Amino acid sequence: MSHAESGDVVADREDPRGDPARPVTISYIAESAGVSVPTVSKVINGRSGVAADTRAKVEALISQYGYRRPTPATRSNMMELVFEQLEHMWGVEIIRGVERVARQNRVGVVLTEFGPERSAIHYWIDDTLARRPDCVVSVAQLSDEQRDLLRARGIPFVVFDPTVELPDGVPFVGATNWTGGRSATRHLIQLGHRRIATIAGPDRVLCCRARLDGYRSAMEAAGLPVDPDLVARADLTTEDGHAAALRLLDRPGRPSAIVTGNDLQALGVYQAARELGLRIPADLSVVGFDDLPVAALVEPPLTTVHQPLTEMAVAATELALALGRGEKTAQIGFELATTLTVRASTAAPPR
Amino acid sequence: MSHAESGDVVADREDPRGDPARPVTISYIAESAGVSVPTVSKVINGRSGVAADTRAKVEALISQYGYRRPTPATRSNMMELVFEQLEHMWGVEIIRGVERVARQNRVGVVLTEFGPERSAIHYWIDDTLARRPDCVVSVAQLSDEQRDLLRARGIPFVVFDPTVELPDGVPFVGATNWTGGRSATRHLIQLGHRRIATIAGPDRVLCCRARLDGYRSAMEAAGLPVDPDLVARADLTTEDGHAAALRLLDRPGRPSAIVTGNDLQALGVYQAARELGLRIPADLSVVGFDDLPVAALVEPPLTTVHQPLTEMAVAATELALALGRGEKTAQIGFELATTLTVRASTAAPPR
Repeated sequence: MSHAESGDVVADREDPRGDPARPVTISYIAESAGVSVPTVSKVINGRSGVAADTRAKVEALISQYGYRRPTPATRSNMMELVFEQLEHMWGVEIIRGVERVARQNRVGVVLTEFGPERSAIHYWIDDTLARRPDCVVSVAQLSDEQRDLLRARGIPFVVFDPTVELPDGVPFVGATNWTGGRSATRHLIQLGHRRIATIAGPDRVLCCRARLDGYRSAMEAAGLPVDPDLVARADLTTEDGHAAALRLLDRPGRPSAIVTGNDLQALGVYQAARELGLRIPADLSVVGFDDLPVAALVEPPLTTVHQPLTEMAVAATELALALGRGEKTAQIGFELATTLTVRASTAAPPR
Repeated sequence: MSHAESGDVVADREDPRGDPARPVTISYIAESAGVSVPTVSKVINGRSGVAADTRAKVEALISQYGYRRPTPATRSNMMELVFEQLEHMWGVEIIRGVERVARQNRVGVVLTEFGPERSAIHYWIDDTLARRPDCVVSVAQLSDEQRDLLRARGIPFVVFDPTVELPDGVPFVGATNWTGGRSATRHLIQLGHRRIATIAGPDRVLCCRARLDGYRSAMEAAGLPVDPDLVARADLTTEDGHAAALRLLDRPGRPSAIVTGNDLQALGVYQAARELGLRIPADLSVVGFDDLPVAALVEPPLTTVHQPLTEMAVAATELALALGRGEKTAQIGFELATTLTVRASTAAPPR
């Protein structure tokens, strides 16, 4: 599909251009200025990272050629939903929320999983620009360049549960991770626990840092010291949660409770406790995070911080579609509230 | 989108028609014959359910107007994936298989969940015909009419794990459910169990009937009677598995083992056993079906029949895309092998 077909054009036939038969696209401006397409996108979108003289040249051409950012004249009634990997148990929770809103709006959802080596990312942006979706909901990490390309085509996007800090102005929907980590820890403190460990997820994942800081904040508010020996790091898997729990529990002065980074890690703690002959919750209290369907099914049923994944997906999709219709929305970024679901994996500490 | 735009046309300008300016579409033939579009589709596709004189009239018009079934000249590089509901834990396993093949073929996947009241089904077929996908993979039940409409447009479809008996010639990919039910039961017999109960899924679900018959077949092969009191029915949920297990276990002469219809039911059996103070596997052996990720995480880890959902989805998508390219495939329907995954929920019966 050429640029002319894909809508990236608002030609002004009266402008003095080298080749009036060619439509005014970003590519055309880039070519005329001798710079890259992403550079032109950055200038159009007022983003940083462009040298002053380049910016001046591009702006002069934009003005001269009469380029206007395209406003989609026709809606495709299609949207894009992208995931890095669908391995997570919560994939379905998110997809269901997106599908619910898609049905209400009669919008087709193109689902893309970038896959193990992120192989699909190389063609996804090209194919997405060609498909001209009304909007994008991204559970994956998009690069600055990809975001620029979407912006330049007037395709709005919303980041679902951002894993890294986003520049101001990038629409997102997340959950109150800091508050969730805090309420999980406070619940244990109120039960009487003092030696409370945490298994935090990787530092590179933003929500994990927020959850860890929520733990620290609750400890501090209760006047309890944060013992560095009781803060473990592990990937958000059952295996890594299991290994971290063994390190925390298989030694003298073990904690009486563990706040985990997610439910899968908590299931790893369950395995470690069984191996060490520790009963949950009599000997050890455990709190998860996410409230996956599995949390209610394990023995004992897991106390966990409920993350409203489906509602978050609903909100992200509604926001993205509203932006796609050109509506001014009250907020372009927000976090939905987590809530503590108390089940049977937490109790008072052993005497 | 009109029929002319959507490709449902191969006009032969030399044919003697009432209005040579109108393209020869199925609608046009239906209108001329005074019958419905699905009726014309049935005739074109050689399906039953059309009165002889109607069939003769339609065939005469097809011959007269020179209608040929359209062969898609251009590929859209899009495919459709439809689910009834995504509640099942195995949704992600299926989607991952489809996405893997879609990446290899650089095909966009439009995902539709029909939803709680199947509300999306009403517009999905219209929107799908308008989107002109290369093929459809359906985890949902399509009606005869929907199948006819897809056929008439030359859009091939593959049914994933059919829940009802399909007419001959409908492409599908399933799993060897009968063999799976048989090997689950034989495993228990080999451990020494004699009083083996089964919780079967609903009769309306084809795979459940196959699994139940596999149970019966293994019992018969071992010369064991099938006690009707040991055959329960329940929906494929943890709640219903729990209720059925209580009925089977909370009485004299209880079984020493239960073959369930799926893993969720098996988790319900776990709950019932705990409530009744029965240890798994010392007092009661349990076998699941599906091998969802949760099966390895519960305590004790669940012995279950592995259903290769991702591989089935890969096969279904490859088949659908091959049909979409107009290839003659060696098989249009097949079942992938199930395998028994022995974990810790099965052991010899109590003495």
